Formats: sequence, structure tokens, C-alpha cells
Amino acid sequence: MLSTLPSLDFFKTSYELRVAQLNEEREKGIKIVGTFCLYVPDEIIFAAGADRIVLCGGRADTIPVAEQSLPRNICPLIKSSFGAVVNACCGGTLACPHVPLVDVVVAEATCDGKKKMYEILPDYLPTYVLDLPQKPGSPEALDYFLSEIKKFGKFMENLTGNVVSNDALRKEIRLANETKRLLHRLFGLRRRDPPPIRGSDVLRVMQKQFFLSPGQFRQGVSQLCDELEHTTPDARAGPRIMISGCPMAAGNTKIVDIIEQKGGVIVVEESCTGTRSFWDCVDEHKDPWEALAERYLEIPCACMTPNDQRIARIVDLAKQYNVQGVVYYTLQFCHAYNIERLRVQKALKKEKIPLLAIESDYGDSDKEQIGIRIDAFLEMIA
Amino acid sequence: MLSTLPSLDFFKTSYELRVAQLNEEREKGIKIVGTFCLYVPDEIIFAAGADRIVLCGGRADTIPVAEQSLPRNICPLIKSSFGAVVNACCGGTLACPHVPLVDVVVAEATCDGKKKMYEILPDYLPTYVLDLPQKPGSPEALDYFLSEIKKFGKFMENLTGNVVSNDALRKEIRLANETKRLLHRLFGLRRRDPPPIRGSDVLRVMQKQFFLSPGQFRQGVSQLCDELEHTTPDARAGPRIMISGCPMAAGNTKIVDIIEQKGGVIVVEESCTGTRSFWDCVDEHKDPWEALAERYLEIPCACMTPNDQRIARIVDLAKQYNVQGVVYYTLQFCHAYNIERLRVQKALKKEKIPLLAIESDYGDSDKEQIGIRIDAFLEMIA
Repeated sequence: MLSTLPSLDFFKTSYELRVAQLNEEREKGIKIVGTFCLYVPDEIIFAAGADRIVLCGGRADTIPVAEQSLPRNICPLIKSSFGAVVNACCGGTLACPHVPLVDVVVAEATCDGKKKMYEILPDYLPTYVLDLPQKPGSPEALDYFLSEIKKFGKFMENLTGNVVSNDALRKEIRLANETKRLLHRLFGLRRRDPPPIRGSDVLRVMQKQFFLSPGQFRQGVSQLCDELEHTTPDARAGPRIMISGCPMAAGNTKIVDIIEQKGGVIVVEESCTGTRSFWDCVDEHKDPWEALAERYLEIPCACMTPNDQRIARIVDLAKQYNVQGVVYYTLQFCHAYNIERLRVQKALKKEKIPLLAIESDYGDSDKEQIGIRIDAFLEMIA
Repeated sequence: MLSTLPSLDFFKTSYELRVAQLNEEREKGIKIVGTFCLYVPDEIIFAAGADRIVLCGGRADTIPVAEQSLPRNICPLIKSSFGAVVNACCGGTLACPHVPLVDVVVAEATCDGKKKMYEILPDYLPTYVLDLPQKPGSPEALDYFLSEIKKFGKFMENLTGNVVSNDALRKEIRLANETKRLLHRLFGLRRRDPPPIRGSDVLRVMQKQFFLSPGQFRQGVSQLCDELEHTTPDARAGPRIMISGCPMAAGNTKIVDIIEQKGGVIVVEESCTGTRSFWDCVDEHKDPWEALAERYLEIPCACMTPNDQRIARIVDLAKQYNVQGVVYYTLQFCHAYNIERLRVQKALKKEKIPLLAIESDYGDSDKEQIGIRIDAFLEMIA
């Protein structure tokens, strides 16, 4: 549950507002795009006059229906997302209420599990896949990604009947950068000791970033920051913790809740539902397509190789936020983040920052065991 | 064990010959490249005057040392390969005898597990990574891959001090096509009923393809075909089986051995250690770089999305080889092949060809259970 900060009420009540807005848009013929990943540039979707919601599943209850076709030993986020689509399209009682709002899914070739799940999505929803080079940093990789996002722009033009003009794109880049700067303001406040807001509250706000309209979201974050700037929190209880790793999609707050129950103070999240979504702005002074290609290809997801930028970012964040320990979170069977942990651990060890690795799914059965491990970790670093 | 066909003796004794050859080459200053995947074009390595061996691990005994750093719940081939490198570089007693022969590893961005394992290989061996687009079929993807293999050509030139000329490349393309045509000749004989050679023998021959020099390998396959063309095998015992899925690296023959013990007659393998390595020739009449880029990007590995070519290939092979059932083999935790099974199963169902899915590691503990399932499958389709 969100805490009692009055400005957080907005995020609690915004869900119905947003569903109403999306339904209205659909009636007007505005196209709604469903996405699953930060690598799909929202700016292009909005510049085409469409709207978007992120469909990543964080709930356990849609997993069983997914396991009727997908293997059980893949990541719970993929199963939960797929299960929500199947449920919605087959009139299941656990239907994700967002799926029926979507005209098309725009997916991306990131990890093996998602990439292959997307191949069976078209049985349920129209699906477009954006390719990604996996070795960023070369001019050729950038050229390839640029061609992919331009193709995606054409796809959006065909879908909506609108032109994706450079001016519209520039406007959307400016607006998205505004969101990013607001989130920097929010995260900046968390450098305080004690931080004025709990990690669990921030996570729930961040999860809303992927569902609300950017305008609604900015309004909420702005009010929240205004309030937090004048909040004097109680003295800090436990050690300052960074969470690093896989995203925690709406519905998934297990690890964060356990850390806080055990007395840890979460001050920053290096993940798609944390810094990875907003840390870097898009260059507003370049050709907008090139600026987008550059910025999006720099997202330090573990699907990239090598992912040195992520390692450097984690160490930098740990210092900036005066972190006493890192909880490295891997969604079960996510090979990319799981293996990348080795390099993260090595880099943090050099800085004498301890790391606790947790791999978990959306079930409850490991809560007790995780609690014991987190307890021991917090005691060790306190 | 290889059967008693006299020509198979060559493959049994070729191991020592090859090791001696590689050692001699090294003394002469010839560079030896280690690879892990079909997507790395051998022709470029040979055209640069270097030699190559494939380092994919099929043995269980190198896995424990890999699990000291890699997660346990990733594919056994990745762990076995990595463990062999660690063992060899740290003087372990289970050292892979091939690793110390290698000057450099040329890896590729295929699946999540390998891609991320390659990031820790440089702690042990110099490593170069070739990027791959994941959505083949577009001119942009081809351009990107072309730029990647040309960059790789430059890398090989720097490594060896030799120029990779178009003429040298054309010569290597012709030779590699010759190997491919020989393997078509071998696999063609297996269309007979009964086939003149066991699947387990073919697998062990195919595994040697990745270790012997192309010349040695062609000599062996040619002799084998000559002999098989005049062999009259005993009447066939059980149903005709196709194996489809993940590669079976040298040392890994578990599933094949079980199928044959239970009376199945393996007639074709749709895998990297089967048809995927040789089915398509490189166009000898085009610019050699473009021809290589086109051919290699068409390899129907499950890391590609969508992988329609593979689905079509499987159905085609099942018909060509008059297959009564398909054993779909997934290395444990290989998400790409595991999820792609859905589409394969659907396509085969249309053709009324039954499929048995087996996911397994390199351990012995599931042999009994797999045996029971294969027994039941063979009985059902007999």
C-alpha cells in the first residue's frame, strides 16, 4: 500500500481516470499501443498521435494459463504478461483489464524468453517487433537501430494515418525529457539521510509511469516532489539499500516489501522500474531520429553485450546514494541478469559494497527464506 | 561407440592426428581460433590462413567448476564449455585438451546464456564477439550482419598478418560447399529404409566436423559414403525418428543412445550437429562477403525471430525422411528452443506427425525416466 503522503493519493486514484481516458480515446479512433520494454521509443508512438500503455505482468494469478503453452521454467514476468493477454482474449476471469484497450503490441528483440513469446502473441493480438543490435557502441549498430526505429515510425504512420513529423517528434522528446527531469528531482530527494519517501512508495509510483499518460504522471510526480521537499521524515532505522537488476512490474513488490519489513531503507533502484527508465535524456539539439536511436541504444539492459555502462552506473549510484548494500534482484530464469551479476559483484567488491543476490518468481513460497537471508544481510551491513 | 563399419575407424583415430596437426601449426605460427557456434563463418578464418576448432562442451565433468561462477540454472552446454576453459586455464585436472591450442575465441551474440558467458571468457582467453541481428529477412539486417563479418575479416587480418582476399574467400567457400555436398550425400543415404547407418554413428561423425580439419573431415565422410553405398543393412526394427532442437556437442549422446536402445531408428537430425550445419550452400557466384552474410544469416537457429524457415525445414525433413515421430530435444533452460517448440508442434500436428518433447541436462539422473517416455512414444507411433 502507498503511504499516507497526501500527494500519493493521486497515484491511488489515477487508475480509473486513466482507464476512462483510454476508453474515450478509443472512441475517438485514437490508437492504443501496448509495449513491454523501455527499448520501444514512446516518443514515436505519441508523435504519431497514438497513446501507449505498458503490458508487463507483475501478477502471479495470470501465470497458470500461460503455463498451459509456455514452458514453466521461464521468467515469471513473461508468463504473467502472456497469461494476461490469453486471459483477456479468451474471456478469462483473470483478464488483464488493459489488454482489451490495446490495438497493437509493439515488442522488441531483447531477451530469449520475450523474443520467443512474442512469436505466439499474434494468435491473440496484432504484434510488431522492433529489432535491436546486441553489441551497442559501434556506428554500424547505431545505423541498424536507426533504420529499425524509422521503420517503426512508418509502421506508426500506417497504423494511425498521421505523419510522424520531426516537429512532433521534437515536441515529444522535450516532454519525455521533462518527465525524466522530474524523476531526477524525485530520486534526488532520496539522497537525503533519511530519505523522505519509502522505496515501496517510489516503486508503486514508478509502476504507474508505465500506465498513466505522461501528462498525468508528471502532474503526480511534481506534486509529490513539492510535498517531499517540505517533509521531515523520522530518523532512519536500517541500512541504506540499492536494488539492482530485473524490473518489478505492477503487482510485483515482494522483495521491496520484505526488505522494508526487515528494516532496510531502499534509497535507489537500478532497474527498468527505477533509474534505467529516466536517467539519460534524449539530446534535444540533434536530428530527433538520431537522438532517439543514440539514447535508446544506450539503455544499459543486460541483453546488451558487453554492458559496461550498467556496471559503471551501479557503482556510481551506490556512491551517489551512499548505499551500504546492494540487493541484486533476478527474475527466476532470467539468464542475462543472472550471469551479469558476476561482473556487478566484482565491481562492487572493489568498492567494498556487499551484494545479496536474490532470484525469485511471483509465488509466495520463498518469502520466508528470502526474509531470513535479507535479515542476515541487513544485520551484516548495519 | 562407433559401429564396426571400417570407414568409421578413421573418425575413431582422427583425434590424435588432429591434435598433432594443430600443435604443428602452432609451432609454425598459424593462429588457431576457437568458436562456439555455426554463425561464425569458418570460411573467413580459413581464408586468413588460420585454423579453427569448435569448443562447445558436451561433457558433464567440467560443469561443477563452471557452477562456481555461473548460475546453475543455465544450459549445460554453456556450463560445460565454460568449465572446460576454466579448467584448462587454471590447470584443472579435467582440462579440455583443445582449449590450450586456441589463440583466440570468436564468439557470437546468439542466446542470452552464451552472450553473457562470453563476457567473462576474457578473464581466461582473448575473446572477440560477432553481433547478429535477431530479425533476419530485411535488407537492413543483412547490411548490419555484412558489416559485422567484414569487421571480423579485419580482425582476422590483424590476428594473422594475412590479407583476407576475395580469391581466398571464394576458394574457402567452394571447399566448405564441398563439405556440405558430401554431408548431403551421407544424409541422402539415410532416406533409405532401413537406413545403412545408425543415428548415433552419424552424430559422432558430425561432432568430428567441429574438430577435424575440413580436409580430414571430407576424406572421412567420402570414404564412409563409398562404403555405405554398398552396405545392405539388416531389416529395420523400430519407427523412423527425427531429432530436432538443440545441438549435441561432443560427449553428449544421451538421448540418441536411449532412443536406439529402445529400438528407435534415427534417420535425421534437425540441429546444429545435424542438418543446420550443412543444408544450405553459400552462393559461389556472388560477391563472397555478401554471399556469406546471406547464407549465415539464414541459419534457422531459434535465436532468430520469427524463425519460420526452421518450422518449414522441419516439416520438409519429416516428409523427405519419411519420419514417424519427432523427438524434440531441448538443452535444459534453453528458452529459445523450448518456447519455439510450440510452433514446431503445431506445424507437425497439421501433418499428423507426433512429437515428444525432452528437456535434459548432461546428468544421468533422468535417463530412466526419459527411457520410459521414449519407450511409450515408440510404442505409440510403431
